[in-house]
Amino acid sequence: MTMKKEILFSPGPTNVPAEILLAGAKRTIHHRTKEFSVMLEEATKGLGRAFDTKGDIFILTSSGTGGMETAVVNFLSRNDNVLVLNTGAFGRRWVNIVKAYGLVPDVLEYPWGESFKISDVEAKVKEKKYKAVLCQLGETSTGAVNDIKSLGDMVPKDTLLIVDAVSGLLTEGFHMDKWNVDVCVSGSQKGLMMPPGLAFIAVRKGLDDKIGKGDLPSFYFSLVHAKTYGEKGQTPWTPAINIIYQLNKALEMLEEEGLDNVITRHKNMAQIARKTVVEMGLELFSSAPSNGITAVKVPEGIDGSKLIEHICEKYGVRFANGQREYKGKIVRIAHMGYVTVPDILMALNCLWLGLKKFGFKIKPGAMLSALETAAALD
Amino acid sequence: MTMKKEILFSPGPTNVPAEILLAGAKRTIHHRTKEFSVMLEEATKGLGRAFDTKGDIFILTSSGTGGMETAVVNFLSRNDNVLVLNTGAFGRRWVNIVKAYGLVPDVLEYPWGESFKISDVEAKVKEKKYKAVLCQLGETSTGAVNDIKSLGDMVPKDTLLIVDAVSGLLTEGFHMDKWNVDVCVSGSQKGLMMPPGLAFIAVRKGLDDKIGKGDLPSFYFSLVHAKTYGEKGQTPWTPAINIIYQLNKALEMLEEEGLDNVITRHKNMAQIARKTVVEMGLELFSSAPSNGITAVKVPEGIDGSKLIEHICEKYGVRFANGQREYKGKIVRIAHMGYVTVPDILMALNCLWLGLKKFGFKIKPGAMLSALETAAALD
Repeated sequence: MTMKKEILFSPGPTNVPAEILLAGAKRTIHHRTKEFSVMLEEATKGLGRAFDTKGDIFILTSSGTGGMETAVVNFLSRNDNVLVLNTGAFGRRWVNIVKAYGLVPDVLEYPWGESFKISDVEAKVKEKKYKAVLCQLGETSTGAVNDIKSLGDMVPKDTLLIVDAVSGLLTEGFHMDKWNVDVCVSGSQKGLMMPPGLAFIAVRKGLDDKIGKGDLPSFYFSLVHAKTYGEKGQTPWTPAINIIYQLNKALEMLEEEGLDNVITRHKNMAQIARKTVVEMGLELFSSAPSNGITAVKVPEGIDGSKLIEHICEKYGVRFANGQREYKGKIVRIAHMGYVTVPDILMALNCLWLGLKKFGFKIKPGAMLSALETAAALD
Repeated sequence: MTMKKEILFSPGPTNVPAEILLAGAKRTIHHRTKEFSVMLEEATKGLGRAFDTKGDIFILTSSGTGGMETAVVNFLSRNDNVLVLNTGAFGRRWVNIVKAYGLVPDVLEYPWGESFKISDVEAKVKEKKYKAVLCQLGETSTGAVNDIKSLGDMVPKDTLLIVDAVSGLLTEGFHMDKWNVDVCVSGSQKGLMMPPGLAFIAVRKGLDDKIGKGDLPSFYFSLVHAKTYGEKGQTPWTPAINIIYQLNKALEMLEEEGLDNVITRHKNMAQIARKTVVEMGLELFSSAPSNGITAVKVPEGIDGSKLIEHICEKYGVRFANGQREYKGKIVRIAHMGYVTVPDILMALNCLWLGLKKFGFKIKPGAMLSALETAAALD
């Protein structure tokens, strides 16, 4: 058997540093202790800096989807008018979550790969009063980034801006308070380079007295409970304690790097990836590519699913397929979390090898350009 | 500073063996892979043996409370008549969850420490037709065990029997299918001796086409999604992958011990604990004490909270306090999960030291009796 090291270039789960894996192997302590409160407070403060908010942060034991549901059930009511900006699979997820609770959303739907247009949203919010606008910072399914800053400037003050930053947090520049975002959701297994298991929800200061005022049912995801317990440095239900160890280790490592530098690193990875794939002769899928994921169209005549599978089987390098109707049509190269220059170069080299194997005539000079782009970062 | 090894005798989280902690430190793999499906299948099969069911098992990333909510939202409707057998804090939790979703439950409420009486339930179900009866196998807040076998024999076939076995699974003898239990919930951090973060829900064979047929809203906890994905060996949302590694390690260790031996071990621990505390001159709190938790009344004139705190500070041995109105009034000695004879002896020795410090006149011979009870197990 050939040795194979599997390396994730998928947008969650992402690679986890050994230090963070091992931080989870510490003794499980009790969650009704001062020791736990101290570590929860540390985690909450660190996440506050990552979201760039002075608001409340809640740590949930769930996936990012649980975090999205938390945003819906705590702030909305059945008869609310809500507007969903649907730019991909996770935009669609907002639609499905609000529908599951009986709301009938207005939806601005865009072709996959495109970002929402501020002017479209502006027209909508002028036409009708919405309780909330729901959208994505980064749309994980397409590798597109949305302009939340402009959206926050434009959306009326009494309309809640609810943002899914599950894959956007720490990969894109993001300033929750400055950008007038009211509720923001993220998760552990993306920019934070942790194993999956935790979701985070940030609630802008002053909005916390609106928690649970709607008529949607909730229990596990109720932030009323979370807030009551949060005030005593606890979580209402037994949390995934060992993953919180990992969260604090991740935050420590990221703060040591510097949160601004983390964003810059992601920007750099994206620049190398984008430039190289274009020079290879591939076409970018997203009109506004994100820092976390470079999605590229699979050249005609090649089955993207087989390409991805081949690269994974032969080299251990795992890219992500397109979702739904884009399965086999796009390759998503995630460079989020624990990814450095050598990693992205490795990923691109393996893409090169895969494309060659599948008969694609790669333009010469692409890899040299990748190296030169990397060199120019110094 | 004095060296202190903290050891949990609290009913969740419980002590986690180093082998299980380290199993979680393995590389995080992607959850849409064959490799993950294989490990999910292994986990599901192992849990099936633990629940003793041929039904479906779903693994959720949440606490046990999330599992309880899952049982409610997937099988009940707003206008259903349901009967809750409330014997403590977790019985009350069933009440609160069904109320959160707009149901108005009938409640058979018992003083804390007592178990439900089959004759009371029998009278209720003869009087009125219920869609479901909800109860606990072991009531964690009081250390009492309930007679689920007799309940299952008696409850009409078309009434769902929904059991919280979060702290009961693998500590009490339990046979879901044979005992006519329809839906059963458990969690990772009790008898399974794992860190918290996963909940499990077992659905009796033949009942799976009833999933999601009610009118309660759900998304993250929807078993409709879980079933669709489960059929392809996946979970609908990104699961806590590294905790599933730990689950398989835990199941491997427990199966090596033998699941029947695991129950016997818990029975033995309970026997040593019960016999010893009674011989110390203490009174048991529960009329039907469970195998997982021995709850004892704190002698008059002693503040139980201070006693527990002292033992924890001085010796690192953490017992659990009573909940709500029983705070300071009872001490809960949990002997669930990774607990052996030397551990329970250590716990009882520390209880002895604490009681002595607080001026309680301990009957002589209690610790000798503990040792003799342990010796008699061979």
